[in-house]
Amino acid sequence: MSGNTLGKLFTVTNFGESHGPAIGCVVDGCPPGMPLSVEDIQAELDRRRPGTSRHVTQRQEPDQVEILSGVFEGATTGTPIGLLIRNTDARSKDYANLVDTFRPGHADYSYFHKYGVRDPRGGGRSSARLTAPTVAAGAIAKKWLAATHGVRIRGYMSQLGPISIPFESWDAVPDNPFFAPNAGIVPQLEAYMDELRRDGDSVGARVEVVAQNAPAGWGEPLYDRLDADIAHAMMGLNAVKAVSIGAGFDCVTQRGSEHGDEITPQGFLSNHAGGVLGGISTGQDITVSLAIKPTSSIRIERRSVDRAGNPTSVQTLGRHDPCVGIRATPIAEALLALVLMDHALRHRGQCG
Amino acid sequence: MSGNTLGKLFTVTNFGESHGPAIGCVVDGCPPGMPLSVEDIQAELDRRRPGTSRHVTQRQEPDQVEILSGVFEGATTGTPIGLLIRNTDARSKDYANLVDTFRPGHADYSYFHKYGVRDPRGGGRSSARLTAPTVAAGAIAKKWLAATHGVRIRGYMSQLGPISIPFESWDAVPDNPFFAPNAGIVPQLEAYMDELRRDGDSVGARVEVVAQNAPAGWGEPLYDRLDADIAHAMMGLNAVKAVSIGAGFDCVTQRGSEHGDEITPQGFLSNHAGGVLGGISTGQDITVSLAIKPTSSIRIERRSVDRAGNPTSVQTLGRHDPCVGIRATPIAEALLALVLMDHALRHRGQCG
Amino acid sequence: MSGNTLGKLFTVTNFGESHGPAIGCVVDGCPPGMPLSVEDIQAELDRRRPGTSRHVTQRQEPDQVEILSGVFEGATTGTPIGLLIRNTDARSKDYANLVDTFRPGHADYSYFHKYGVRDPRGGGRSSARLTAPTVAAGAIAKKWLAATHGVRIRGYMSQLGPISIPFESWDAVPDNPFFAPNAGIVPQLEAYMDELRRDGDSVGARVEVVAQNAPAGWGEPLYDRLDADIAHAMMGLNAVKAVSIGAGFDCVTQRGSEHGDEITPQGFLSNHAGGVLGGISTGQDITVSLAIKPTSSIRIERRSVDRAGNPTSVQTLGRHDPCVGIRATPIAEALLALVLMDHALRHRGQCG
Amino acid sequence: MSGNTLGKLFTVTNFGESHGPAIGCVVDGCPPGMPLSVEDIQAELDRRRPGTSRHVTQRQEPDQVEILSGVFEGATTGTPIGLLIRNTDARSKDYANLVDTFRPGHADYSYFHKYGVRDPRGGGRSSARLTAPTVAAGAIAKKWLAATHGVRIRGYMSQLGPISIPFESWDAVPDNPFFAPNAGIVPQLEAYMDELRRDGDSVGARVEVVAQNAPAGWGEPLYDRLDADIAHAMMGLNAVKAVSIGAGFDCVTQRGSEHGDEITPQGFLSNHAGGVLGGISTGQDITVSLAIKPTSSIRIERRSVDRAGNPTSVQTLGRHDPCVGIRATPIAEALLALVLMDHALRHRGQCG
Repeated sequence: MSGNTLGKLFTVTNFGESHGPAIGCVVDGCPPGMPLSVEDIQAELDRRRPGTSRHVTQRQEPDQVEILSGVFEGATTGTPIGLLIRNTDARSKDYANLVDTFRPGHADYSYFHKYGVRDPRGGGRSSARLTAPTVAAGAIAKKWLAATHGVRIRGYMSQLGPISIPFESWDAVPDNPFFAPNAGIVPQLEAYMDELRRDGDSVGARVEVVAQNAPAGWGEPLYDRLDADIAHAMMGLNAVKAVSIGAGFDCVTQRGSEHGDEITPQGFLSNHAGGVLGGISTGQDITVSLAIKPTSSIRIERRSVDRAGNPTSVQTLGRHDPCVGIRATPIAEALLALVLMDHALRHRGQCG
Repeated sequence: MSGNTLGKLFTVTNFGESHGPAIGCVVDGCPPGMPLSVEDIQAELDRRRPGTSRHVTQRQEPDQVEILSGVFEGATTGTPIGLLIRNTDARSKDYANLVDTFRPGHADYSYFHKYGVRDPRGGGRSSARLTAPTVAAGAIAKKWLAATHGVRIRGYMSQLGPISIPFESWDAVPDNPFFAPNAGIVPQLEAYMDELRRDGDSVGARVEVVAQNAPAGWGEPLYDRLDADIAHAMMGLNAVKAVSIGAGFDCVTQRGSEHGDEITPQGFLSNHAGGVLGGISTGQDITVSLAIKPTSSIRIERRSVDRAGNPTSVQTLGRHDPCVGIRATPIAEALLALVLMDHALRHRGQCG
Repeated sequence: MSGNTLGKLFTVTNFGESHGPAIGCVVDGCPPGMPLSVEDIQAELDRRRPGTSRHVTQRQEPDQVEILSGVFEGATTGTPIGLLIRNTDARSKDYANLVDTFRPGHADYSYFHKYGVRDPRGGGRSSARLTAPTVAAGAIAKKWLAATHGVRIRGYMSQLGPISIPFESWDAVPDNPFFAPNAGIVPQLEAYMDELRRDGDSVGARVEVVAQNAPAGWGEPLYDRLDADIAHAMMGLNAVKAVSIGAGFDCVTQRGSEHGDEITPQGFLSNHAGGVLGGISTGQDITVSLAIKPTSSIRIERRSVDRAGNPTSVQTLGRHDPCVGIRATPIAEALLALVLMDHALRHRGQCG
Repeated sequence: MSGNTLGKLFTVTNFGESHGPAIGCVVDGCPPGMPLSVEDIQAELDRRRPGTSRHVTQRQEPDQVEILSGVFEGATTGTPIGLLIRNTDARSKDYANLVDTFRPGHADYSYFHKYGVRDPRGGGRSSARLTAPTVAAGAIAKKWLAATHGVRIRGYMSQLGPISIPFESWDAVPDNPFFAPNAGIVPQLEAYMDELRRDGDSVGARVEVVAQNAPAGWGEPLYDRLDADIAHAMMGLNAVKAVSIGAGFDCVTQRGSEHGDEITPQGFLSNHAGGVLGGISTGQDITVSLAIKPTSSIRIERRSVDRAGNPTSVQTLGRHDPCVGIRATPIAEALLALVLMDHALRHRGQCG
C-alpha cells in the first residue's frame, strides 16, 4: 500500500531508488507567501551529502535539487512543491553478486519476500540515499518553523560505537564530519573509524535532536500524539532501532517525585518529559534520542542463503557508509521539523 | 485535528473521558465472517481492568463491553464494529482541587495550553482509562491474526523501577498482577510496591511484547514502515517515553558483523533485527520494548503554578496506579496486534 | 477497507445497522469551547425522523441521541464527540423472506457479493437509517459554521417524481412533510403520494441545498476541491444518483459569455458557478442539487434470483419510505455542513 | 491543506503549474510485477495532448513523460512510480494583463482570496494542463485493471453545446478530435467550433465514461462508496459542474417499479443503477456522465474588478481551448480507472 507519505496536513510524498534516474518528493500543504530558494534547500542537502569525508560512502553525488513547482517569484504559493534530485554516480555492476543472495541484516531479504521482485542496485528503495528528499523537505519545514515561531532544531552525535561523546558545545558540531558537539574527541572518532574501515566492518551510533521554542499546545491526545508521530518519523528512518523522548529508558528507574518536572512562575525546573506531556508540547525543549544500527553492507564474509534457500556466503564490496549514524544528524533534524510543522498546522486548524 | 484514529486499512477510532458517561471505539475494516463474541473481547479487557489487586488503582470498573454493530449471528459482517463501555465508578469530587492547578508531569498543563479548557475529572481524555477501548479493539485483531496466520502476541514486565525481572517462563505471566515472567520474584515486587504506596510515590517500568509467526512481507519501505507504525502506536500509549525494536539501544555499540543476523537454510541464527528489516517483517519474532514513566498523580507535595501563573503546591489524592506499567502489558499487546493486522490487510491489498 | 469516515481535519466515523442495538458516530476535530447540548442535535434529528407523517416509513424511532464524550459543562472540549442512538422499533421478522433473495435495485445484491454474508434485517448497514448519525454530526457542523462565520445552510425539495415544485419561499419549508418551498403545491404532493402508496410503488425526487455566507477561500485546487468533496458526500448518501453544483448539466449548452459570472464592485452579477471556482469557494451562495432514486423496497412483485442463482420473484412487505427523497433535505444539509466545516478548518490550518 | 492526493490504497499525488518548469505525479501502491513502459503511458497522454487539432489550444507541448522510479527491468517493483513531464511552450507574457484582474468564471478570483498570492501564468495550478499527470497515472491503472480483471474503460462525448451526439459506435471515437461516437456528426461539430472561435466565445459539453467487466464487490457501504469516490474524482476535474451515475437525474421521475433493475439467471434486465448499488459494484457496466462548463478564458470583453476592487473589463488573449470538454474524454477515463483500481485493492485487502 501507499506508505510513502509522511504527515497529515503538511505532507511529504517520497519517490525514487538508489540507482534509478532520480529521487525526489512532493511537499504538500506549505502555507503561501514564504520566501523559498534552491539555496535554502541545498544548504541542508549539503550537510547530508555523501563523499564529503573519508568516513562516509565515497559515492559522489552533488545532490543538486531542482524546485519543479509551488514557488513563484521566490515565494511559496500554497500549492505542492515538487523537488527533484538526479542520481549521477550509480555503479550498478557493484551489485551483480547480490542479485541472488541476501545480506544479513539488510532489507534485501524482506523486500524479496514482500514483493517477489526487488531492485538490487544499491539497495534500491531501501537505500539511505532516499533520505535526501526527506532532508530537502525538512529544509522547508525548518525555515517555516523558524520564521513563524522562532523554532530552532539542532542535532548531534552523542555516541559512536563504544565512544560516548560528552556534549560540550553546539559550536563544535558543524566543524567535524561526525556532528560531534565536542572538538577534542574528534581525533579519537577518526582513529576508530579508520580502524573499522581496515576491518571491513561497521558500527552503530546514537544521535540526539532538540527543538527549541516550540510553543505549548502542538499534538493530539490519543494515537496521533506529538511524541507518537516523532517516534513514527524517527523509527521510519533507515537503521533506527530505538527512539526515546526526554528521560527515555531512564524513566524506568525513576520515581514520580523525581520524574515529574516541577513548575514555577519562572518555568519548569527540569525536563524529564522532553517537552511533551499527554502527547502535547509543553513549550519546553523537545528532546529526542535515536539508536542507529551498524550498516549491514560490510566486507566481512557472512553466512546467508540464496533465493532458492541454499546456503551461501556474502561479502559486500560496493561503496558504503561504515557508520550510517555519521550522516544521520541532519536527517533526524529534518524529520523532527516535518512532524512539528504538520502538528503546528493541525493545531492552527482546530484551535488557532 | 482529528487524531483519534489508529491505522489505515484497519482502523480504530477512540472516544471518551475518564469521568464522562462512557468510553468506546469504532473498529473499521475487520474482514467479514470471523466469529466474534462479547466474551472474546471481555477476556482481554479483564486483564487490563482496574481494582483487581492492591497494586493498582482501586477504582471499581467492571469494564463491561457492549458490541453495538458489525456482528450478525455471531460473526463479523465486514462493517464497522461499535464498542461501548459505560463508566460506573466516577468520583469527580476528588478532583475539585485540581481544576486550577497543574500536576507536575501531567497532561493537565499541555491540555490547558492547547484547548484553553479541560475536563479535570480523572484526567479527562488523558486518563489511562482510555486504553480500555484500545484493548477491546486489540482483542479483535489478536483473534483475527491468530485465526488467519497463527500469530501469537504476548507480553511481560521485564523491570519494575530498580528491580530487573529475569525471564523464566511465559507460564508465570498470568499468575501474578505484574505480568512478571518469573514467579520467584513476585514477593519482591509486592514488597517494593507496598513501600512505594506508603511513600505516596510512583515508579516506572519496562515491558516487552513479542509477536510470533508473523509472516515475512508485512510493512512498507518508507515512512509507513512496520517498525515505524509500531513505534507510533507504542509511543502513543500514555506514559511511554521510549520504544525499541530488537537490539534497541544496544545496537549503538554493536559492530555490523555482530548485529546483522546470519541466515542459514534452517533460519536466522540470531534476532538483533527484532523481526523487521527495511521496515518489513522477516518472519522472525517481532520484539518490542517500552519504557513507561512513573505516574504523575502522587501524594507527595510538589511545586507547581495555578492557571494565573502564581506559585502553588499540588498533592494528588484521588485513586491512582502507583505504577501504570503494571497494567501496560495487555495494552501493549493490543497495540502490536492492531498495527500488525493493519499491515496484514495493507499487504494483502497490494501484494496479496 | 475502512470507508466509514467522512472528512480529513473534521471527521465523522459512522457505525451501526438498521436492526442492531444502536447506531451512532464519533465526531473528531471539533474546536473547543463551542456550547453544545443534546437539544442542538435533537432538533436536527427530529427533522429527519421516521414516522412523522403518513408519507414516510411508519417505523417508530424516537432517535433520542446521547452525547457520550467531548462535552464538559455544556461546551465542547476539542476531544472526540461520541454520539449514540438506540434502535427501539426493529421488526426483524419482516425480513425473513429476503434472506435468500435480492431486491432489484437494492444493496442486498452487492453486499452479498462483497462480503459473502449480510445482515438482511432492514437492509442492515445499507439502510437509510444510517443517515441519522450523519444528521447528528451535521448539527454540530451547522452550529459551528453559524457561530463562527454566520454560514446558513438550508435545503428544499424541488421535484417529487413528475411534479416540479416552484420555489416560492423558505418560510413554507418547515410547514409541510416534504420540505417543499411552496405551500400551495402541498395538496398535490399529498395526493400523489397517497396514490403511490396504494400502487405499492415508489418514486424519485430532487433536492436543493444552499449554503449562504461561506467566505471565499475554502477548498483545495486539485482532487480535494470543495465541489469534489461536496459531490463525494452527496453521492455517498443512499439513493443519490446525480449531483450538480451551480448551473449543473445546464452548463453543457451555455456559452462562456453566458456562464462566466461577471463581477462588479457590488458583487457577482449571476451565480452559474454555484459558489465554487477552481475548487475553491468564491463567497457566493454554494448551490447543490441532488437526484434521489425511488426506493427499491416496493410491494409490486419483481423478478429476481436467489443466492443459488435460481429465478424467483420478490415483494417487499416491511415498513418503507415510498420516496426516500422526502426525508433527504435535512440529510443533504448535514452533509454540506460537514464538508464546509472540514474545509474551513483545513483552510485555517494552511492559510489562516 | 494537502489536498493534491487522490486515492487511499492506490494514490496519485500531483504537482506542478502550467508555466513552471515541470508537472508530474507520484503513483503509490501499484502492485509489483506489472510490465510497464513509457509507451504505455505516452499513448494515453497523446490522446489528451494539446495542439493536435484546430479545435483545441494551439500550445505545443509534446507531453513527453519520464518514469523516474518504481520500474526495474520493465516491470513495476511495488514502490512509488515518479512521473515527470517538462513544460516546453510556456508563453508567460500573454498573461501580463491578468495579474491584477479576475476573469469571470475563472479560478483567478478564488485562488487570490485563498492564498493572497497566485501564479497568473496560464492559470498556474488551476490550468487544465494539470490533468496530464492524472492521465499518466490513469494509464497505469487502466493497464492493471485490464491485465488483472479484464476491465475496459472507454468514454465519448455525447453533447457539444447545443448539439446532441447520438451514440453509433465505439469505433468512431478515435477517428475524430471530439471523441464523438458518430462519424456522421463530425462535420457539424467542426462547423460549430469554427463559428465559436470566430465569435471568440467558448461552450460546454457532456462526456460519458463506461467501465466494463468490473466485478461485483468493489466499494464501501458508507461515505467511501464507489459512486461517491467516482463523483469526487470527476467533480475534482477542472470545469466539471455535474456528475451522474446510471439513470442520473432521470431517476427523479422514475418509479421504483421502473428504476430497480430486475435480475434473472442470465443477468440484469436493465442498468438504471449504472453498475453501483449501495455504494458497491454489481458487476454491470459502470456508467458515468459529466457536465463540463465552457472555458472562462474568452476573447469577448467582460465586466470584472481588479485586486483593489475597482471595476474593469477583461479580455483573454492567450491560447485556450474554446471547449475544454473536447479533451476531457481521456481524462475522465483516467479518473474512473484510478478510482476503480483503488477500490479493487481496498476490496482485496479486506475481503480478498
